[in-house]
Amino acid sequence: MATSIRIFVTGGTFDKEYDMIHGKLYFKDTHLPEIFKLGRCTLDITVRTLMMIDSLDMIEEDRELIRRHCMRCDENHIVITHGTDTMVQTAKLIAQAKLDKTVVLTGAMIPYKFGSSDGFFNLGNALAFVQALPKGVYIAMNGRYFRPDNVRKNKSTGFFEPLEDES
Amino acid sequence: MATSIRIFVTGGTFDKEYDMIHGKLYFKDTHLPEIFKLGRCTLDITVRTLMMIDSLDMIEEDRELIRRHCMRCDENHIVITHGTDTMVQTAKLIAQAKLDKTVVLTGAMIPYKFGSSDGFFNLGNALAFVQALPKGVYIAMNGRYFRPDNVRKNKSTGFFEPLEDES
Amino acid sequence: MATSIRIFVTGGTFDKEYDMIHGKLYFKDTHLPEIFKLGRCTLDITVRTLMMIDSLDMIEEDRELIRRHCMRCDENHIVITHGTDTMVQTAKLIAQAKLDKTVVLTGAMIPYKFGSSDGFFNLGNALAFVQALPKGVYIAMNGRYFRPDNVRKNKSTGFFEPLEDES
Amino acid sequence: MATSIRIFVTGGTFDKEYDMIHGKLYFKDTHLPEIFKLGRCTLDITVRTLMMIDSLDMIEEDRELIRRHCMRCDENHIVITHGTDTMVQTAKLIAQAKLDKTVVLTGAMIPYKFGSSDGFFNLGNALAFVQALPKGVYIAMNGRYFRPDNVRKNKSTGFFEPLEDES
Repeated sequence: MATSIRIFVTGGTFDKEYDMIHGKLYFKDTHLPEIFKLGRCTLDITVRTLMMIDSLDMIEEDRELIRRHCMRCDENHIVITHGTDTMVQTAKLIAQAKLDKTVVLTGAMIPYKFGSSDGFFNLGNALAFVQALPKGVYIAMNGRYFRPDNVRKNKSTGFFEPLEDES
Repeated sequence: MATSIRIFVTGGTFDKEYDMIHGKLYFKDTHLPEIFKLGRCTLDITVRTLMMIDSLDMIEEDRELIRRHCMRCDENHIVITHGTDTMVQTAKLIAQAKLDKTVVLTGAMIPYKFGSSDGFFNLGNALAFVQALPKGVYIAMNGRYFRPDNVRKNKSTGFFEPLEDES
Repeated sequence: MATSIRIFVTGGTFDKEYDMIHGKLYFKDTHLPEIFKLGRCTLDITVRTLMMIDSLDMIEEDRELIRRHCMRCDENHIVITHGTDTMVQTAKLIAQAKLDKTVVLTGAMIPYKFGSSDGFFNLGNALAFVQALPKGVYIAMNGRYFRPDNVRKNKSTGFFEPLEDES
Repeated sequence: MATSIRIFVTGGTFDKEYDMIHGKLYFKDTHLPEIFKLGRCTLDITVRTLMMIDSLDMIEEDRELIRRHCMRCDENHIVITHGTDTMVQTAKLIAQAKLDKTVVLTGAMIPYKFGSSDGFFNLGNALAFVQALPKGVYIAMNGRYFRPDNVRKNKSTGFFEPLEDES
């Protein structure tokens, strides 16, 4: 049987939409179900939206909530969609829980609805990593996976980079 | 350093385009470089096009050529884009070589250029699986990975299914 | 009140889709309602599908049917979506009826569903021409309008051209 | 010969892009040339960017500049891409000049780069209206054309509506 995967949605650029009346970006619903359909994905996936916020607006209680959901859910394979700005911080907090699960955080630099988003690709990455990597917490961005304590988002390029070369 | 990954392009639906003069689908160049750019992928990837054909038109010499390239290339992580109709057959042939490498075959049911393709997602899957799975040959489709001797393409739905439930 | 516009759908490249199981192009339903929604169009439009065929497969009875519908419908402003290969032929037949109506034929070189189609633009053209041009029959392609007796489709480029320079 | 058309770009939602580093919308270059290519447009068009601003940020001198360019340019057929919020105001100012030209203002509610924009359709409308309507100043939005003194943008729906029913 295909692995059971839990997805927690927290918001971030990934799920932002364009509000044409006010000319601003905002959150409505997650696009994950439509993404899985487009990807013709037959995995056993359960999606739950925990919050719909910018990761710069996340407070410690939000991260704590995400961690608790990772602990409590039945699945051992968890993907979290998350804003990129504080993704590393949340990943570190979850890692402290030393769960016997594989947890992969991913996000996007461009909203999924904008046509040229990296989100569809990143989610493809994250879903594969969560099935194939050993227990632990990871960040999946730019086609790669990183350990939370050896990665940072380069704020001028938007790329995720290892703190030290892992070779 | 990021893993070095070799990609062999063989054609398939993935890279088909629409010829507006004749109203037919055809092959021109691979779209992989533009896909990696869109995915903001920073992996160390080398792409080589081996052929640009429908997998129904593949003869044994074509598959043999693909296998030899898998054996000879320097990289231990190989992704092959391939038509879905005979993907399993090619995977089985490569598996016989018992290479000390991770080889992942992937493809698409809808051409990448058609806007609603599964290809971008599948390639995200394949690139993650090739980094995270142990040595062996795999097929990455529908968000999942399969062993060549335990998968078939369901011709009426287009989905890849395990021959027997692997649970 | 906004002008009442009748649209007759006859098929053509415009409405072709990709059949992923057989790897072929085919007709299902027209995409016009979704196009009007995307274009945020508030015109009073009634769509009727007369046939869903390649214009190369049209026989004289098909064209005759289209002409009769143009004559009989209540609206004086008619847009016909049509395959480009024999669009001129159908336009000439309708012109013979010397209707007291404005009739604009349009189509696409690339299917609407393929993401990079000219169809959305062409339909925008056609809907504006049908409101603003005097009574008569016209072809709207490549941003321009043509009289049926002074246009041909250039088969090697796919562009519509005047037979003689109308300057 | 095809009509010579002048296009003046002034910014507006139409040409906004997503700045992935700062998560904000901004202006870079106009997308008009790529739109004409996608629309396979063979009209004789000359594009000039006058400004790249939100129409809410337009001051009277900006509108005056647009009007002067309409007066001075050689072409008698002019399309202006403009933010929707003050499009009517600019159209009224140009109308005061009583030019012997056809001037059509258009815009978009969703940026062209966002994949689901009305901009491609609106531009198709505007280019057709500018060729087919008599001398005067018009607003082309929602598939329709309006006179500047008989239209308003409904701020809650984003649709353009006639002040009074013109039937």
